[in-house]
Amino acid sequence: MTTRFETDPLRVVLVRTRNPLNIGAAARAMSNFGFLHLRVVNPYEAAFREARSAVGASAVMAAAVEFPTVAAAVADCSLVVGTTAVGRRKLQQPVEPLESAAALIRKRLRSGRVALLFGSEKTGLSNRDLSLCHVLLRIPTREEHGSMNLGQAVAVCLYELARGSGGALPAARAKAATSTTKASASAEMEDRINGALLEALRASGYLKPGSSAISEDKLRRLVRRLNLSAGDAELWLGMLRQILWKLHHGGQQNE
Amino acid sequence: MTTRFETDPLRVVLVRTRNPLNIGAAARAMSNFGFLHLRVVNPYEAAFREARSAVGASAVMAAAVEFPTVAAAVADCSLVVGTTAVGRRKLQQPVEPLESAAALIRKRLRSGRVALLFGSEKTGLSNRDLSLCHVLLRIPTREEHGSMNLGQAVAVCLYELARGSGGALPAARAKAATSTTKASASAEMEDRINGALLEALRASGYLKPGSSAISEDKLRRLVRRLNLSAGDAELWLGMLRQILWKLHHGGQQNE
Repeated sequence: MTTRFETDPLRVVLVRTRNPLNIGAAARAMSNFGFLHLRVVNPYEAAFREARSAVGASAVMAAAVEFPTVAAAVADCSLVVGTTAVGRRKLQQPVEPLESAAALIRKRLRSGRVALLFGSEKTGLSNRDLSLCHVLLRIPTREEHGSMNLGQAVAVCLYELARGSGGALPAARAKAATSTTKASASAEMEDRINGALLEALRASGYLKPGSSAISEDKLRRLVRRLNLSAGDAELWLGMLRQILWKLHHGGQQNE
Repeated sequence: MTTRFETDPLRVVLVRTRNPLNIGAAARAMSNFGFLHLRVVNPYEAAFREARSAVGASAVMAAAVEFPTVAAAVADCSLVVGTTAVGRRKLQQPVEPLESAAALIRKRLRSGRVALLFGSEKTGLSNRDLSLCHVLLRIPTREEHGSMNLGQAVAVCLYELARGSGGALPAARAKAATSTTKASASAEMEDRINGALLEALRASGYLKPGSSAISEDKLRRLVRRLNLSAGDAELWLGMLRQILWKLHHGGQQNE
């Protein structure tokens, strides 16, 4: 998958971020999930400088744009979404859980730019910042410990945005999906395994005429339940046959 | 929502983590999403100490348990899931995208413990570690920049696990859900089967010193892929041990 700068309409906006590690972490998650436009509002100067010059700073950091105010940073966006940990203060706007907010964002990204705002580590977004938002978004965390690390919150939001895009990351998906399904062993092959196993169990004394510890039917079901792939079945049969050979020729010891 | 320690069956396992900030970040994400059991394998000593004593270290860090090996850390778990950035190396196991892997994990959490493994920042999980896994999981990131920050990867995985649980966290569900699925064999039980099989293959001459037809790691993966239930595992182990006995005592033929 390639994401072209020009055609990526999401703007991730970090507001008054203090910790350079968090700016770097946000940029890394953006790069991971293919969102490339970072905007920073009034960051602690040293933090922004440090994050920019950090080893491994991605193309995202290199292209990050600084704005003096949130209003300026979201001016060209048709939907502004603020992230918040609910409970911190009384909110005047509806708060959507991440999953439904992400659905809305994806929809609006088709027709225009969307800004996704993350506040400072200590205080989050101010009431002023929130008043610039159309929608507030909350990652569903535990009540007892709702506040997330900034870099992790960015990663989770962008994961959810990419996840639901169903094809925004076609290459990655195709890659992950390969080799999950393998040809299953044929019933005939399973019967051969079953036969070899039965013989080994008889030769070893596990199965005795008259008083079976396990019936043949039970054994067959046991082998069926393994759901072997064709390749694995070959391996197991090979092992069983070698063990069987040894069981029958145990007397003629030599290595 | 509240999560009680005893009823939370997920074990987040950090393997050879170097950076104390990452251990702390993982613990924070765990606390955010209500997964409380952290296990660390062979961390850099200083990193673990520093993470434990960090300001704001949550109950998760206080209760974290250290293990000398991955095998020991997953021994009581019936499903072992490794996280990986595909492309790093050729993988012998199927790799599931996070979303479907999470569905499997949630299902299995109803009947037993599940271990979710994260490798070190530099090298990820080793081939040895991976051979202990039933399933590998990949967060669908861009091909051009697939490798995620450790703390962010933990956050995204746990968000997805909590997301699909329909609001309730695993602890609550584990209690509420009456299990229709059979209990899976523990990793420790699988290791015992693996050990007996290995011995039988050596005794039979299938495995020879120096020129292995099948490596030990490959064999372990083969056994993991069987996905045995606890009951079936008992049966297989019993059979193997009998065969093994016979292989060792083949000379003294009699019934």
